[in-house]
Amino acid sequence: MTDETRGAPHVKNLTADNITENVNIINSKCPNPRSKYLLEKAVQHLHDFARETRLSTEEWMMTIKFLTEVGKICTDVRQEFILLSDVLGLSLLVDSIDHPKPATGTEGTVLGPFHSHDAPHHTENGGTVSHDPDGEPMLVLCTVRDTEGKPIQDAKIDVWETDSKGFYDVQYANRETPDGRAVLRSGKDGVFWFKAIVPVPYPIPSDGPVGGLLKHLRRHYYRPSHFHFMFEKPGYDHLITALYLRGDPYEGSDAVFGVKESLVVDLGTVSSEQAGEYGVQEGSRLLSYDFALVTEEETRQLKEEKAKAAWEKQGMRMRLLDGLPVPDVD
Amino acid sequence: MTDETRGAPHVKNLTADNITENVNIINSKCPNPRSKYLLEKAVQHLHDFARETRLSTEEWMMTIKFLTEVGKICTDVRQEFILLSDVLGLSLLVDSIDHPKPATGTEGTVLGPFHSHDAPHHTENGGTVSHDPDGEPMLVLCTVRDTEGKPIQDAKIDVWETDSKGFYDVQYANRETPDGRAVLRSGKDGVFWFKAIVPVPYPIPSDGPVGGLLKHLRRHYYRPSHFHFMFEKPGYDHLITALYLRGDPYEGSDAVFGVKESLVVDLGTVSSEQAGEYGVQEGSRLLSYDFALVTEEETRQLKEEKAKAAWEKQGMRMRLLDGLPVPDVD
Repeated sequence: MTDETRGAPHVKNLTADNITENVNIINSKCPNPRSKYLLEKAVQHLHDFARETRLSTEEWMMTIKFLTEVGKICTDVRQEFILLSDVLGLSLLVDSIDHPKPATGTEGTVLGPFHSHDAPHHTENGGTVSHDPDGEPMLVLCTVRDTEGKPIQDAKIDVWETDSKGFYDVQYANRETPDGRAVLRSGKDGVFWFKAIVPVPYPIPSDGPVGGLLKHLRRHYYRPSHFHFMFEKPGYDHLITALYLRGDPYEGSDAVFGVKESLVVDLGTVSSEQAGEYGVQEGSRLLSYDFALVTEEETRQLKEEKAKAAWEKQGMRMRLLDGLPVPDVD
Repeated sequence: MTDETRGAPHVKNLTADNITENVNIINSKCPNPRSKYLLEKAVQHLHDFARETRLSTEEWMMTIKFLTEVGKICTDVRQEFILLSDVLGLSLLVDSIDHPKPATGTEGTVLGPFHSHDAPHHTENGGTVSHDPDGEPMLVLCTVRDTEGKPIQDAKIDVWETDSKGFYDVQYANRETPDGRAVLRSGKDGVFWFKAIVPVPYPIPSDGPVGGLLKHLRRHYYRPSHFHFMFEKPGYDHLITALYLRGDPYEGSDAVFGVKESLVVDLGTVSSEQAGEYGVQEGSRLLSYDFALVTEEETRQLKEEKAKAAWEKQGMRMRLLDGLPVPDVD
């Protein structure tokens, strides 16, 4: 229904049958068509959820209490709402909607709540990203290219991982300086490399309300061993991804649904020649991967195709505004 | 789909097309059938919302930030998530689902975020509920009966209202003792009465994230003048309601959608006889209403009918568990 076909709102005498339409009429004064559309859809789904399930006051108050606790436990370095979004599969879904990939591009996955903005910038390749003496040393030697195999130089690459105990630096109350994270630049031939440690599986934070939800659902808290990578380069779509170690006990049951077969890797072994070239021990572990970034233009086209398919499925007349769908009211 | 017909979850390689089903398979280990059903429906609606709107990462992160702020501003005496639920019409909807009323029962409305549990208990009728010297005195003289008109004695009745400036006691940082609220008992013939002040319209708290949302939506913050009542009596369905003053400028545009025609009243005038009987000034304002409580049994039957209609509309096989629908997996 468009604004034009809507009557004046009837805000009195609202019932389960007429409230949704009238709340949306009231909200329709919003001058931003995208906000208006998002609110209309959110209200429709929230109300349908309550009507379909016959949601009780007690259940809704428990939900209010849960959401309040999720908000309360958030700090500058802990984002429990992102964790909630992660364990409900919503984070992966939004990434796949916003960053669709052709078969030739590296797949994306969940950002997770542990990326920070204070990682040290490495001006040259070869730096040490993890200083944990208990971690098993691992050379990371990768390339970043476009989908046609052409190297991309000077891409900005955020990398981050846990320490050998499965904790990110930000999870330590006494953290003084960032560790296990860095911002790098790809060099000539799209190569970037650094010294890190072999990732380990770890539990997502389970002492908060999201942990309580997982316990209630009889789900485990673990993520399989992985290493995070995030790429930025003008002209290319932002890529948030991670590499997963094959054979991890949680490879098939990641608590946040991030694993994709194309991102699962076997660790290699540093050869004698590589040991000399990169200044690490021969025989130590090696993580290698060739990342492929998709152009912004190709991403835009893919998103447009998928958006059109989605609204045709709903039988709606839509148009794109800044690349995002809004109702076509003409 | 029932658990029996579901295969093992495929938690790897999730895409926008297969993630919802697989998240729900993972969540289906929950032994509580009602929780499992609520989670399944919540995940379905959340994911459908993202897919239908082509939700962007930026939009989702703004939502995460908004929800975090809603949680952060909550205190023991401020519940911003209830306020959010109120302004989206969800609170009124849930009340109408959980407390359906036959035509003979008093309609319910939103509880709002300002009910507290520390109101003074008045052991006798006739007490003073509001001590605000700037308020216009109002005698409240009501009865509570069943739907056949039989008086209900000894019902527990919570009443609450703002002061003359439109603020509830709990909104004052320096609040020392409750005011503008009380817990009463109906006497013989179901009568209850007390001294209060004429309600005034007031803005819901607009200095938090929900206020920001209303501003973005170009909505006003006002609730029309009203007085809250909540009834409890064994054997009768809990009634949360309020009375609204006819002619209020916000009667037709309540920010939280609570007004119902049957709850809108004209204030009367205290007669000479009433002035003597109730110890108030002749000619002062009078709020009178006959409330009708619905039995638990009648409410149960109404809820069951409406639940069955809702699941038949969805074409689902359901059964009731403690009065609430769950999928029928037999």
